[in-house]
Amino acid sequence: MNTKTIAVLTSGGDAPGMNAAVRAVTRTGISSGMRVMGVRRGYNGLLNRDVFEMNLRSVSDIINDGGTALFTARSPEFNTPEGVKEAADNCRDMGIEGVVVIGGDGSFRGARDLTKAGIPCVCVPGTIDNDIASTEYTIGFDTAMNTAVEMVDRLRDTTESHDRCSVVEVMGRRCGDLALQTGIAVGATSILVPEVPFDFQRDIIDRMMFTQKTGKKHFIIVVAEGVGGVDKLAKDIEAKTGIETRATVLGHVQRGGSPTLRDRVVGTVMGYYAADLLYRGKGNRVVVMHDGKITDVDLNEALNMTRTFDKQLYDIAHRVSI
Amino acid sequence: MNTKTIAVLTSGGDAPGMNAAVRAVTRTGISSGMRVMGVRRGYNGLLNRDVFEMNLRSVSDIINDGGTALFTARSPEFNTPEGVKEAADNCRDMGIEGVVVIGGDGSFRGARDLTKAGIPCVCVPGTIDNDIASTEYTIGFDTAMNTAVEMVDRLRDTTESHDRCSVVEVMGRRCGDLALQTGIAVGATSILVPEVPFDFQRDIIDRMMFTQKTGKKHFIIVVAEGVGGVDKLAKDIEAKTGIETRATVLGHVQRGGSPTLRDRVVGTVMGYYAADLLYRGKGNRVVVMHDGKITDVDLNEALNMTRTFDKQLYDIAHRVSI
Amino acid sequence: MNTKTIAVLTSGGDAPGMNAAVRAVTRTGISSGMRVMGVRRGYNGLLNRDVFEMNLRSVSDIINDGGTALFTARSPEFNTPEGVKEAADNCRDMGIEGVVVIGGDGSFRGARDLTKAGIPCVCVPGTIDNDIASTEYTIGFDTAMNTAVEMVDRLRDTTESHDRCSVVEVMGRRCGDLALQTGIAVGATSILVPEVPFDFQRDIIDRMMFTQKTGKKHFIIVVAEGVGGVDKLAKDIEAKTGIETRATVLGHVQRGGSPTLRDRVVGTVMGYYAADLLYRGKGNRVVVMHDGKITDVDLNEALNMTRTFDKQLYDIAHRVSI
Amino acid sequence: MNTKTIAVLTSGGDAPGMNAAVRAVTRTGISSGMRVMGVRRGYNGLLNRDVFEMNLRSVSDIINDGGTALFTARSPEFNTPEGVKEAADNCRDMGIEGVVVIGGDGSFRGARDLTKAGIPCVCVPGTIDNDIASTEYTIGFDTAMNTAVEMVDRLRDTTESHDRCSVVEVMGRRCGDLALQTGIAVGATSILVPEVPFDFQRDIIDRMMFTQKTGKKHFIIVVAEGVGGVDKLAKDIEAKTGIETRATVLGHVQRGGSPTLRDRVVGTVMGYYAADLLYRGKGNRVVVMHDGKITDVDLNEALNMTRTFDKQLYDIAHRVSI
Repeated sequence: MNTKTIAVLTSGGDAPGMNAAVRAVTRTGISSGMRVMGVRRGYNGLLNRDVFEMNLRSVSDIINDGGTALFTARSPEFNTPEGVKEAADNCRDMGIEGVVVIGGDGSFRGARDLTKAGIPCVCVPGTIDNDIASTEYTIGFDTAMNTAVEMVDRLRDTTESHDRCSVVEVMGRRCGDLALQTGIAVGATSILVPEVPFDFQRDIIDRMMFTQKTGKKHFIIVVAEGVGGVDKLAKDIEAKTGIETRATVLGHVQRGGSPTLRDRVVGTVMGYYAADLLYRGKGNRVVVMHDGKITDVDLNEALNMTRTFDKQLYDIAHRVSI
Repeated sequence: MNTKTIAVLTSGGDAPGMNAAVRAVTRTGISSGMRVMGVRRGYNGLLNRDVFEMNLRSVSDIINDGGTALFTARSPEFNTPEGVKEAADNCRDMGIEGVVVIGGDGSFRGARDLTKAGIPCVCVPGTIDNDIASTEYTIGFDTAMNTAVEMVDRLRDTTESHDRCSVVEVMGRRCGDLALQTGIAVGATSILVPEVPFDFQRDIIDRMMFTQKTGKKHFIIVVAEGVGGVDKLAKDIEAKTGIETRATVLGHVQRGGSPTLRDRVVGTVMGYYAADLLYRGKGNRVVVMHDGKITDVDLNEALNMTRTFDKQLYDIAHRVSI
Repeated sequence: MNTKTIAVLTSGGDAPGMNAAVRAVTRTGISSGMRVMGVRRGYNGLLNRDVFEMNLRSVSDIINDGGTALFTARSPEFNTPEGVKEAADNCRDMGIEGVVVIGGDGSFRGARDLTKAGIPCVCVPGTIDNDIASTEYTIGFDTAMNTAVEMVDRLRDTTESHDRCSVVEVMGRRCGDLALQTGIAVGATSILVPEVPFDFQRDIIDRMMFTQKTGKKHFIIVVAEGVGGVDKLAKDIEAKTGIETRATVLGHVQRGGSPTLRDRVVGTVMGYYAADLLYRGKGNRVVVMHDGKITDVDLNEALNMTRTFDKQLYDIAHRVSI
Repeated sequence: MNTKTIAVLTSGGDAPGMNAAVRAVTRTGISSGMRVMGVRRGYNGLLNRDVFEMNLRSVSDIINDGGTALFTARSPEFNTPEGVKEAADNCRDMGIEGVVVIGGDGSFRGARDLTKAGIPCVCVPGTIDNDIASTEYTIGFDTAMNTAVEMVDRLRDTTESHDRCSVVEVMGRRCGDLALQTGIAVGATSILVPEVPFDFQRDIIDRMMFTQKTGKKHFIIVVAEGVGGVDKLAKDIEAKTGIETRATVLGHVQRGGSPTLRDRVVGTVMGYYAADLLYRGKGNRVVVMHDGKITDVDLNEALNMTRTFDKQLYDIAHRVSI
């Protein structure tokens, strides 16, 4: 027997493209003959019963909006055995037989617990950090990268006009993907990520000096949040090279904005896929991108995977930025 | 023995991201110990010897520029046996031992001919149309799609304010990929592509009427260039539904603009890859994306492949736009 | 005695920034102690009584949206003596004692008629064309110009890569302001506007030939909609110069998009001003920009003014694009 | 007798639109029959004789670039009587009979000194801060404001998704114009500028509480750099209201980017105007915007003027953001 009533929620940090996924879950669910409930503010909405039935028009004109139309929040209450039990009881009480959880690793662990408590969940990776081991791509990553690139392109103008060096911190606490991709795209002289230790002299100063000798007069250094310390770094670079150096932290601006095509399309396909899994009676799954294609994996297995950083791409990045 | 002097050219229609590829070819080549020559205006530059030696700084600050810094042109003279011979002779004369050709299918055929005439070529797919059978992705596609989406998002504002229907033609003469992806991203009610025959009543009118009943009041229809006829289509829709309908052709605006992150990164990696192939003495290859990864295939085989349209994605697109 | 209940509507073509004006009318009205009614779809809403009371939150989060949240429509029924009388009667019946009309010249004539029928109106100029004689600036103009510039900047990439000429039609049926400003901003070789007759040889060909002699290889010609004929023009230019020439019509894309800062700020100040006029019992006025400042003029006088084209700016434009 | 050879330089902080002004000075100068010299890196270029003759094509394709193609720098050497004398001597030696100086107040003081030393200067206001008393508008202001608005619009997405408050610092050390205009455009609940003292409880907390009662759940506070202290402010707001609050400093990103139409057009007209003044033998002038029109004032008088903050606009801003 198929699941008849499903719910969808967004949890953790918001990410552009989450709305495309919510929309696809809703439309796919309804057109499959299921009822689809929207849950507001993540797992909190399951605890507070802040849940409403959606129709085809509930998700109209949201695909181009950043953020999440269902809102999101952290939920310390849910992160307890009692909280999970209460949420599961509430689901049963409201007739919710499956939940699509759109969010990051933390949200996935909640989904695993909720599944164990009897409410099958399907997870969709939505986070700008691309820091989920089980998938090559997370919804929101492309928008965040393009926002970072656009901002660094602006910085480049003033950096170039003044023959300066700019040290830019982009998001990514544990994961250097955003820094790596952004660094390639802006032609950064050095890219610092948490996955690769760096040597100040060899990886920054020597690289600057080498390119300066070939005529380069302005420099961009991209630093992942997880490496941090951009103010000190800027001072050290200026002290060592004599080149005027400024630090910039791009910050939360990277989280927002109308999603790029890629986040809308991947969000749509993953949302479709998630609703279809619940329709076919499958829970405890994560929708992932693997070899460029959308598929699904077991939720427990997904949570046990470890990320691998693309060191080869990192090397290519530095090979061409000379 | 490795190739010592290589050249790089861009040919056919320009595409955002070509500059990232030119830059990566140049920097990778030079840092491998090769000389790298820039060729202006495609194969014409080989015929006219419009060729110059590049250094590391020749490609500075171009990664964020649209178009191609090497210029491009059609070359009817090259497309003759005499033209190919002359180009090959010129290459030999100038010491060019390999050429990276960045362009589309037509440019690849020129590269095959030039390879046969004794100058090994490596091709890099650069065209906004994504219409090359051997690769999942062509440089410029992501930028063109995002430009189309941004423009349709603008159209949506006025379409919605007036309760209208907009019929929008996007690029893609033989290939519906740009229309399909754009259509998903803007939530188009119908997407018309050359690969899938459509029925006016069933695929447009019925879909509009169905969603209108659920409360929808404005509609977007995305049409690939290869289907065309948007003016007539708009009139027919208005006549049949009574909904005011306007046609828009996005046109050449889709070709330009600062490349998105994806086109900069894919352009960089493919350019690196191409220069490395020539460095390792390999010619007659095409750099491609396969299963989301960059690799290479034989040029003759590549030219014999046939494209397959993603009908499943097409169906998902229409499933969620209701 | 002050007006106690006022209404606000948007009429004619939509323009980015209208929402800022609606928001400011609403908030200013309510904070002055008045009731503010929103009217949907222009004058039609007064005929159909499609009117709703607004509160402070009714206009939340619309300042950054293109189009108009109140929708707009043409209203042939209203444009008759009977229609005006019915609208006035409906206003009286619903207790509406004054109306803010946001739109263009045609909408202003409706406001004059409604004022004569006993419902004092205050007009706010909202149209992307900047074609209203009584004001230096109309809401939406800045956004439309910047959209046109952004699109031509994209065209420039491909035009430059191919050594081509691009002939671009921008909006402006009777008014060349959008073409003139856009032409200056993109460095157009020639700008054709309805207000200034042009000579094909002298104003286009000779200018192209002169700059070509100094080394210029790509050309942009900006043409106002009111001049039109871009396809023929492109053919004629190509025939005469031998330079490959393409025509592009930017079209309705220019109407939409998130408003620029200027349209949000001018919309806000004009909306504030309009509500304040009604609050102070003044009707039959148009809010205008004069010498860079917001003020108001008599509606009848406004409708009798004639526009003057800035010929001096036109001459400067051509002086620097050589 | 007219000035025969003039020079143009950009000084102080770079601003988008400076290139439009440089281009217009160059083209206007040459087409008037003058020689035009480009000076690199501000007054330093006059000291180092880093000067080159420009032709019509020297300024091609720069109107859409951010930053300044002539580069800019601070020049402590120039800011001494000896430095000014040396620069004037160098000018005489190189035959430079007049200089167009594009920059801010500090640069204008240098121009006054250089004029006194015998080289007539004409100043063009170029700074993103709009902090020059003699003109209503400075080149670069519109681009910087729109960049700030675009970034805050992105912040708004995540602020809204999380029901948060965002405290955003925008540029403007002495001048609150950028904060004021940005604050209006993003619908900020409070705007803090150096020109108007604020009361934490009344101007921030009370305003947040009032709007919260009407249903508002997310808040944006815009703070000028000259007020600063956003981290502490965010903590204080969170402590007082219980609403999660984050601080963001937009930083140097606001300085760059392709100029908006307004900065390109105003830059063009002011540049034209400056070259024409020198052509007509007038020095010691500042090109300004007054009542929305471009005109010129005496340089000494300009430097003695004091700015007036638009308190009325400030009040309107807060009137409509409730």
